Amino acid sequence: MAVHHVGLTISTKGKGTYEITEAVAKTVTDSGITTGNVTVFVRHTSCSLIIMENADPTALRDLEEFFERLVPEDTPYFEHTAEGGDDSTSHIRAVLTRSSEVIPIAGGKMQLGTWQGIFLFEHRRAPHRREIALSIAGD
Amino acid sequence: MAVHHVGLTISTKGKGTYEITEAVAKTVTDSGITTGNVTVFVRHTSCSLIIMENADPTALRDLEEFFERLVPEDTPYFEHTAEGGDDSTSHIRAVLTRSSEVIPIAGGKMQLGTWQGIFLFEHRRAPHRREIALSIAGD
Amino acid sequence: MAVHHVGLTISTKGKGTYEITEAVAKTVTDSGITTGNVTVFVRHTSCSLIIMENADPTALRDLEEFFERLVPEDTPYFEHTAEGGDDSTSHIRAVLTRSSEVIPIAGGKMQLGTWQGIFLFEHRRAPHRREIALSIAGD
Repeated sequence: MAVHHVGLTISTKGKGTYEITEAVAKTVTDSGITTGNVTVFVRHTSCSLIIMENADPTALRDLEEFFERLVPEDTPYFEHTAEGGDDSTSHIRAVLTRSSEVIPIAGGKMQLGTWQGIFLFEHRRAPHRREIALSIAGD
Repeated sequence: MAVHHVGLTISTKGKGTYEITEAVAKTVTDSGITTGNVTVFVRHTSCSLIIMENADPTALRDLEEFFERLVPEDTPYFEHTAEGGDDSTSHIRAVLTRSSEVIPIAGGKMQLGTWQGIFLFEHRRAPHRREIALSIAGD
Repeated sequence: MAVHHVGLTISTKGKGTYEITEAVAKTVTDSGITTGNVTVFVRHTSCSLIIMENADPTALRDLEEFFERLVPEDTPYFEHTAEGGDDSTSHIRAVLTRSSEVIPIAGGKMQLGTWQGIFLFEHRRAPHRREIALSIAGD
């Protein structure tokens, strides 16, 4: 067995979902590993990961709108607002989604289902450079 | 170290929780791995994974009712409803729970606590065949 | 590649967040593994894991208050209340957060971002001893 560490940087334009499936798939192919796992880890607390339907843009819009309502910006009781009304909001949305995902690899490919895409979910209003740490382990 | 890939298919009867602990445990035993991890990955975006109390059925009922209220079916502002009023609802419930779980193996057994069970959480009204990708890695 | 299993016990004083970053980092250093992953798995269904901003205590307070409101104690429709008004509440808060996290290791260090801490999120009112299973795998 072997293990590879790869870093991935994503530039976001502010709030929304950014698909990274192809970028992750490329690191798997480049690793030469045919059976194992890829771990995807986001190195931030105000953006997160989701695995989501990637065919119909309205599915992503509904999800984004749901989070706008579940954890609103400028929530009156939030104290942690030094960076703006999206500060605690961003951290809580991140906690409700994922920091790490692990996807099995078989036959040299990630075992994603037909409709699954991996997305960076940016929770901050402003553009950010986001770092993702990947490790690919297996034979 | 070795790594094994195993597929698991679960037939659901529609919405609800389906325990898969025994099926996952069997793949661990069959692998012969005594120290390592098992990765459980659901290959869909309208069902998900949870690790949950598996002794008292009322705990699962409360959880299911909570999700009915948190992400209701037929939510008026949802646009992604091509497959029915449970369409976006299912994806959002999946995002709020898990696509992947990784459970350490020691002494040849998954290190689940006494009350922990692994469940497939089906979010669609209709029965479905669901595929789970497992990888077991270790010594 | 090698894999190490380590157990970690955390004594909580009841509800709240307990940082375990240093304890996890120590197991990584002790393992001697420089490239790989550490899997953190909580062996309970009434506490959970989060990766969260660890610099400003108000961020954690806002998060805790959010969960008090999202899944209130003593929710009237909950049936699973044998252990008190925080019983189903605890399980549901656990399902909405994480049982497992996997953090890549590179250069002998976990690839956490600058502001990321790993926390045990205790959902029960009473103090508990909590067991966390760790596995560190890699070269």
